[in-house]
Formats: sequence, structure tokens, C-alpha cells
Amino acid sequence: MKRHTGPTDMNRRRFMSIAGVVGVGAIGTALAPDGIRIEREPSSAAQSTEHEHEADGALAQTTSTEQEEPTVDEMDAMHEAGIASFPAVTEGLGGQPLEYELDGDVKVFRLSCELTNWEFAPGEFVEAWTYNGVVPGPEIRVTEGDMVRIEVTNDLPQSTAVHWHGLVVPNDQDGVPFITQPPIKPRQTYTYEFPIRDGNAGTHMYHSHHNSAFQVTMGMLGSFIVEPKDPASRPAFDREYTIVLNDGPIGGYSLNGKSFPATQPLMAKRGEKVLIRYMNEGLMIHPMHLHGMPMTVTAADGYLLPQPYMCDTLNIAPGQRFEAIVDATELGTWAFHCHILSHAETEHGMFGMVTVLIVEE
Amino acid sequence: MKRHTGPTDMNRRRFMSIAGVVGVGAIGTALAPDGIRIEREPSSAAQSTEHEHEADGALAQTTSTEQEEPTVDEMDAMHEAGIASFPAVTEGLGGQPLEYELDGDVKVFRLSCELTNWEFAPGEFVEAWTYNGVVPGPEIRVTEGDMVRIEVTNDLPQSTAVHWHGLVVPNDQDGVPFITQPPIKPRQTYTYEFPIRDGNAGTHMYHSHHNSAFQVTMGMLGSFIVEPKDPASRPAFDREYTIVLNDGPIGGYSLNGKSFPATQPLMAKRGEKVLIRYMNEGLMIHPMHLHGMPMTVTAADGYLLPQPYMCDTLNIAPGQRFEAIVDATELGTWAFHCHILSHAETEHGMFGMVTVLIVEE
Amino acid sequence: MKRHTGPTDMNRRRFMSIAGVVGVGAIGTALAPDGIRIEREPSSAAQSTEHEHEADGALAQTTSTEQEEPTVDEMDAMHEAGIASFPAVTEGLGGQPLEYELDGDVKVFRLSCELTNWEFAPGEFVEAWTYNGVVPGPEIRVTEGDMVRIEVTNDLPQSTAVHWHGLVVPNDQDGVPFITQPPIKPRQTYTYEFPIRDGNAGTHMYHSHHNSAFQVTMGMLGSFIVEPKDPASRPAFDREYTIVLNDGPIGGYSLNGKSFPATQPLMAKRGEKVLIRYMNEGLMIHPMHLHGMPMTVTAADGYLLPQPYMCDTLNIAPGQRFEAIVDATELGTWAFHCHILSHAETEHGMFGMVTVLIVEE
Repeated sequence: MKRHTGPTDMNRRRFMSIAGVVGVGAIGTALAPDGIRIEREPSSAAQSTEHEHEADGALAQTTSTEQEEPTVDEMDAMHEAGIASFPAVTEGLGGQPLEYELDGDVKVFRLSCELTNWEFAPGEFVEAWTYNGVVPGPEIRVTEGDMVRIEVTNDLPQSTAVHWHGLVVPNDQDGVPFITQPPIKPRQTYTYEFPIRDGNAGTHMYHSHHNSAFQVTMGMLGSFIVEPKDPASRPAFDREYTIVLNDGPIGGYSLNGKSFPATQPLMAKRGEKVLIRYMNEGLMIHPMHLHGMPMTVTAADGYLLPQPYMCDTLNIAPGQRFEAIVDATELGTWAFHCHILSHAETEHGMFGMVTVLIVEE
Repeated sequence: MKRHTGPTDMNRRRFMSIAGVVGVGAIGTALAPDGIRIEREPSSAAQSTEHEHEADGALAQTTSTEQEEPTVDEMDAMHEAGIASFPAVTEGLGGQPLEYELDGDVKVFRLSCELTNWEFAPGEFVEAWTYNGVVPGPEIRVTEGDMVRIEVTNDLPQSTAVHWHGLVVPNDQDGVPFITQPPIKPRQTYTYEFPIRDGNAGTHMYHSHHNSAFQVTMGMLGSFIVEPKDPASRPAFDREYTIVLNDGPIGGYSLNGKSFPATQPLMAKRGEKVLIRYMNEGLMIHPMHLHGMPMTVTAADGYLLPQPYMCDTLNIAPGQRFEAIVDATELGTWAFHCHILSHAETEHGMFGMVTVLIVEE
Repeated sequence: MKRHTGPTDMNRRRFMSIAGVVGVGAIGTALAPDGIRIEREPSSAAQSTEHEHEADGALAQTTSTEQEEPTVDEMDAMHEAGIASFPAVTEGLGGQPLEYELDGDVKVFRLSCELTNWEFAPGEFVEAWTYNGVVPGPEIRVTEGDMVRIEVTNDLPQSTAVHWHGLVVPNDQDGVPFITQPPIKPRQTYTYEFPIRDGNAGTHMYHSHHNSAFQVTMGMLGSFIVEPKDPASRPAFDREYTIVLNDGPIGGYSLNGKSFPATQPLMAKRGEKVLIRYMNEGLMIHPMHLHGMPMTVTAADGYLLPQPYMCDTLNIAPGQRFEAIVDATELGTWAFHCHILSHAETEHGMFGMVTVLIVEE
């Protein structure tokens, strides 16, 4: 059982050689970034999340009446430039495993809440609210039966608190200010400690539960994976990926804190079973569509379904997590994106919630 | 089998003693209500339902540039004041059982369609369109095999009609003006009469089906519960709650017609099985997230699932109903809210679709 | 096994005689179309898709303050006029079976991408982006094991490409410009060819995958139905309907490219099993609610569910397809609509995502 949650060994040149692209020529870089920049500007990205049709309508409108319409070749060149730059190199990569220290039997993790200048798309930065300086925050990964301590230091200009979304914890560790604890004030450190229950394996999350509509969408979110004591108790897989969906002002429509072409591709060898852990930390649904082969959905919110079912488009609502296994039978580079098409493409090319699954021999 | 659908024996003092809150001090009441009032003003509430990101963005923007940003302590105080005032006393409580008279074997219910000044949050009133002066309308509860008559009197300034959403009724009792009946004009009384079919047990609704995008979201909605002839035909439970979700101009984001902190807490003794009947009468999805312990989903639209499944975040779309059972194993006060976080919290604290489940010894 | 996917033998007079409508009198035609026209104006339809509450609020607001409120009778007359005109005759009908030619064992289909003046509601036209001049494009229907060739000619002012959504095809036939193929430039013809895999039976789609948020919502979409080699491998039915959901600028909220009252009714004889194939090509969820009798959901994205389940409101997200069987046990004319009520009704009457199921002896 190999695990693969982090950066891939994929670079741009390799992607372009794998993807069967014909005729990728010299693209006017001034053209593409400019066009894309307009779409990706943080403020307009944030607005567009709730103005899809208006944005689409305005786009069409603007194109045909108010500004010079790009020619067919110009539009295609912008699309091609986006694909050609994938996977684009950007600063910062979230969701990497968080190291812990052992204090006796207790696994001790440390989270630092801090502002970070986050590059969500090439050359596009925003002041993110983060755990440990990355979006998503680092992955916390433990096993059923573990005792876990998490020390949270708040270096933000607001109070905060951490909710362990999906974990069954003692009430006073649940992370809701004024219901289960006082808020963690700026410059304070607060310690959570709880056992990981048997039966609580699966895909969970941690995120702010204070001024959360703001703090979470600004980046205060991460995955919390609980492995089963007995691996045989859950469906087998060869490698795994976690996809955190978000649609906030930080990065707009994003997969793991990045907007296409800065998203990370998923890789598999033919015949492998790839576990995908979905979690939605945004404010909107995102029906994720994988081209080329179906997914078998095995768990909801960490709990195994009584019977898995197959689909190619999995609708994930805010707060939900799903585990799905892809049997990587089909060779090639397969588009993989939110099927609310305005979260994935504009007239200027793909953006936002788009990546690919690459299946190789 | 105890049933509990109505007001609880919970008051504010008792809630604060159960919730493990530290340091609830004197809150500037002028501060909190004012801040909250801005968020809850009916017109802005209505707008915000479709402008989540814009509203959030605007809020952040406004805070940092156009108006004086609250200090950390001021923001926390507003959050604390909201929690401290829960459950807030407001006028009017919807969803209480509707009495009936027997005419032979027929159970005769009476609904009066009328305008009501409805307090959806403390001190916040709106002119609601109601059944019997409450939002939600009173609960109609019958049993498979019953014969039901419902006399509907229209005291509204518009025509109306009642659709029995989920019930299998004769076509001419279905409540759709100009397809199955003439509209019920102002000052008219209209009588529906139909048998409750075997196999139609479960969680259903009644609501207006005339100018419905307006009349329903303004409050013309209620629960219609059909109990099985044989209780053993459905999963056992110890007590039950109904949660009607709405996102209309009346009350904005609301649970049973009230916005937090005017919502009602759910209570359970440890070890009880709590049936939650969800129904969405709004225009948006609402993924309801229960902290602390999972839900087992047993029925969709009243129909038992072939196999129940577990989750902690249940996505409910407009028109859908779900039945879920919570095994109340975990002591404490557990947040319970829509996980579209902008439906549950602003910079000024929790509001809207928020309540708690309190599990006591 | 009868199949019925196309226009029905229903006309307006027949509908009004079946629907038990009382008192359909002379409606001021100037009144109804004017009122409806305001709601259906393409630009406002497009805007309203993302401004439901605002639109609703504005409507209520406008009605009571800025323009003269219609009287009760005027409002009812507008509602009645809409129903009375159903099913309204409009130019063009999409989703009809596409003829093919045999080249040896290969079934050869032809799609022409072209602009069309499309009547989405009576008297309401918009310049649609279409396959073969209709919205939805013609239905492609094949059988597991078939070899299929599809020749696509582009007569649009933009490049395009066709994605076979749900079909397991060789990577280079997947239809994603710059990942699996070059875009199809204006005036070019591009040929796709692929086998229909065993196990890929069910309800699928084809649509543009270039500038897709624009091209798809403007009409470049169609159903792709794969019949099983062995009909006994899937649930039996007597007749079938396909419902393509869309919410784009073309036609606004539409069923099969038409807005009520221009939508097509579904017909059944009592006792028949009616298969409904849902597919969402829009940008929003649409929870479809059938009055009068439940649906049994049998397949998701073409894949049979391990166990079917029953419901009366089926939530369909963009990119998803569902197959559901209605046991037509209940006589009469049953409303059938999206339960986001603002997609189905305004103060001026029903519009958009509304049709009926008519069950006759």
C-alpha cells in the first residue's frame, strides 16, 4: 500500500509529453496572463463565486459589445497557454503530513495560526489565514486508538478556535467558543487533547469555528485522516489523494488551496486502485467529475457505506467528506474538475477547480 | 417512546450552566444587538441568501476599510453575547401539534391562512404569511389508514392553495391551482379530504402551491407527519424533533421559523435514540452538521432506505425530507448548524441556522 | 417495452380537458404575455438564476411599492393563462433520435455545431449555440458493444470540442482541447470513433468541452443513451422520458430546452412503469419533485445502484444523471417541477422547470 498525498514528480514538460497535445506553439505570454489575471483577481474571484450566471452573462456581453472580442485563434491560444503551463510552479504547498512528537503515548502536534502571503495561482497572491503558513493546513494523520494532543498558537489579529470536524471527541475539546471553550485570543496557546475512538476511522477535517464563514474560507482548514487499526476493515487501495474543495476569497475556486494551472495532478500506474478523499470547506456544492473511468464511493463522512455505489460525478456539499476508489484501468491524461462549469472554465481557459488524473503503464 | 417536538424546558440560565462556558461577563447589550441587528435586518438577510461571498467579502472589506474594525475583545463579546442569550425568548412558536375533531371516522383539521407579525429573532419582526399565525404552521400528525379532512380558510390578500407534499392523494386533492382545483380566493374556505394510504408513513410537508416562491418562503409551510399503523415497521426511537429549514425573506436562514439565538435546543438523555425529521422549505441546499456524534439516515421523503447509512453532515435540498436517528451517547452541549458557514455565523457571532443538541445524564 | 422520448400526442385542448380545471375563462392575452415577458426576458432570466432571493425580494418590493400591484383576480388570471396555454406550441423540438448510417459495423452519426434562433418559450427567441439546430441536441442512442463514429462539423464563430460525458472512451477521443485533441476550429470537421464498452449502459450526455461554461449553457448539450445488450440486466419499464435540466442564458430554467408552458408533458397509461432519465447540464442543482407518486431511483451516472431507493424529490447536481422509475398507479394530471420554487413560479404564474405527468386509463 503506497501513499501519495503530496507533490508529484510531475513537471510541466513531462505533463505536456504525456498529454497528447498537438501543436503547442509560442504563446503570447502577455496575452494569456493578462486575460487570466482579470478572471483571477482575488476580488473578482470572490464575487464570481456567487454571480456565476451574471459573470457568464457579463462575460459574453462584454466580449461582444464593450471590449474587442478575441479572435478564435486568440481565444484558443489562451486556453492552450493555460494547459501548457500546467502544473504551474507556485510558492507553497499545503496538505503535507504534519510531524508529531511522542510524549509518552501521546502524539503531540503543533498548529500555528498565522497570516501568510499565499500564491494561489501563478503570480497571484492573497493574504491568507492559515495553519502553519499553508493552505490547506498540514495534514494530521493518526490511527484509531491513538491519544492525540494538539497545541494551537494564535498569531492572528482575531481570536480563533479549532473544531475537529467528524471526530467524536469529549465535549470540552470540540472547539466552539463560548459553548465548549473560551476563544483562543491572539498570542495565546491552547491545547486540545483527546483519544481517537475506535470506529472513527476515515476522512475528517479540522477548521476554525470562530468567525468561521470568514476564517475558514480565508484558509483555516486542513484534513484530519484517521487510519483504521485494522487496514482490512476498509477497502484496499494502492495510493491515495486528498482533495480539499474551497470557494472562498482566498484562491476563489480551489483544489488544495490552488487554482488551475497551479493545482497538482493525480498520478497512477495502470491497474492501481486510487483512493480519493474529498472534503468541502467552501460555501457551495461542488460536483466533481472524473473523465475516463468511474469512481466507487465507499464512505460518507468517514463511515463506510453499507454498499458502495459507482458514479462519475460526485456532488460534495460544504462539510461533507467522501471516500471514493478509482480503478485506474484507462491509460492517459484525464480531465478532473468541478462540473459547475463556471468553477472550471472561462472564455480565457480553464481555471479554478481543475486538475487531471494521469494513468501510466 | 416519548415524543418531543415542541418547546423545551430549557431556559437561558440553564443552558449557560450546562454549556461549559467560562467567563460570561457583562456584555454591552447596546453593542451586541446593534451589531446583530445589522446582520439580521430582513432586507439584508434576504439579500445575503444569494450573495454569500459578496456579503462575506463586503463584510471583511467594510470592517477593515470603511468602518471602524471591532477590536478582538469587542468581536468576541458579540459572539459571547449571542451564545449567552440562547435560547432567546421570542413571541410565537410554530410547529406545535394541531388539534383535530372527529366527524365520524374523519379527523377534521382547520388551517387559517393569515398575515402575522412574526418575531423571528429577538426584537426582529416581519409580516409573515402563515398558517394559524405561526411559522412553521402547526404540525399535522395522523396515522396510516386515517381519513383526513382539512378546512382551509384564506384570510390573505392573495389567493392560495395547499399542496400535501409527499402524500399520495387523489388528484383533485393535490392542491395545484388550475391543474387540480380553482385557487382559494381571499375570504373563501376550501375543504380537502383524503385517506392516508398504507405505505405513506413518514415525514411530509404541507405548503402553498400558489405564487409559491413567495408564499412558501414568506412562511406558508408546515410539517405533515404520518405515523405507521405498526410502529415496529419503522426504526425505534425515544424522542423526536422536526427541523424545518427555510431561507426566505421571513427570518432569513431559519430553523423552525426562528434565527439563532431564538432557535430551540434539542434535548436528550444519554443513551436515548433521537429521531430528527428534516425538511427543506427554502430555495437553497442546507447541509446540516451535528457535532459530537453521527446520524444514521433511515428514510428519504418518508420512504425507508433499503439500508441506513451514517454521516455527520446531511445535505438537504429544497423539497427533500430525511429521517435520521442520533444515538445520544456523548454528554454535553453540541453545536448543530448548517455547514454553509455564511448561513450560521458572521463577524458578529452565530445567527440563522444554528441550534444545539444537549445530551444529559 | 414501448419507448416514448419525443413529442407527445397531447395538445392544449386535450390537456385542459384532462386536467380538472374549473372556470378557465377568457384571459386578457395582453396581460399575461406582458407580465410573463418581463420575467422571461433572456437577460433577466439569466440574472435571476443567481439572484433568486433578490429577484423574489425585488418582485415583492416592486409589486407593493413601485408598480401597481395586480389585483387578486389579475394575478390568478395570469396563473390560469399560463396553465391554459400548456403545452404551448413553439418552434423546434430537441432531443429527438439522431439517425445514423452504417459503415460496415460502425454506426456513423453526424453533428453540426451551429447558431440557431431558438424559441424557448412562446414568442421568446434567443440565439442558441446548438447541435443540429436544436436544444437539447438530438439524442444519440446506441447499444453496448457498438462501434460508433461521430463526425462533428463546426459552423460556430468559436472553436469547440465534444466530450462524451459518462462514456469510457480511449483517451484521445475524450474531447478536451489541448489535453486530448486540438480544438475543432470553425469550418473544420472532426471525427470521433470509439467502441461502446460492455458495462457502460445507461444515461449519459455529450456536450462542448471548450469555453464550456458558455457553450454548454447556451445549448451545446444532448443525451447519449447506451442500451444494454441484455435488456434483462436493467430494470424493466414500459416507456421512457429524458429530462435535460438547464439554467443558462438560453431559455433560463428549462426542461429539454423549453420553459413552461412550452415544456412537453409526460404521458402514461395506468399501471405502466415509466423510466425517467434525468441529466443536469446547468450550473445549479435542481431537486425535481413529482406530485402524486414516488420515484424509485435505480441508477446513478448510468451505473445501477446496489439497491434502488424511493423518493419524491430527486436532487440532481450539474453533471449528474439519474434513472428513476415511476409506477404510474395514480390517475390524473400531476405537477412535476424543480422544487427550488423560484425556478418554477413567479407572481405571474408558473414558468421554467415545470411540466406534468398525465396518467390515464
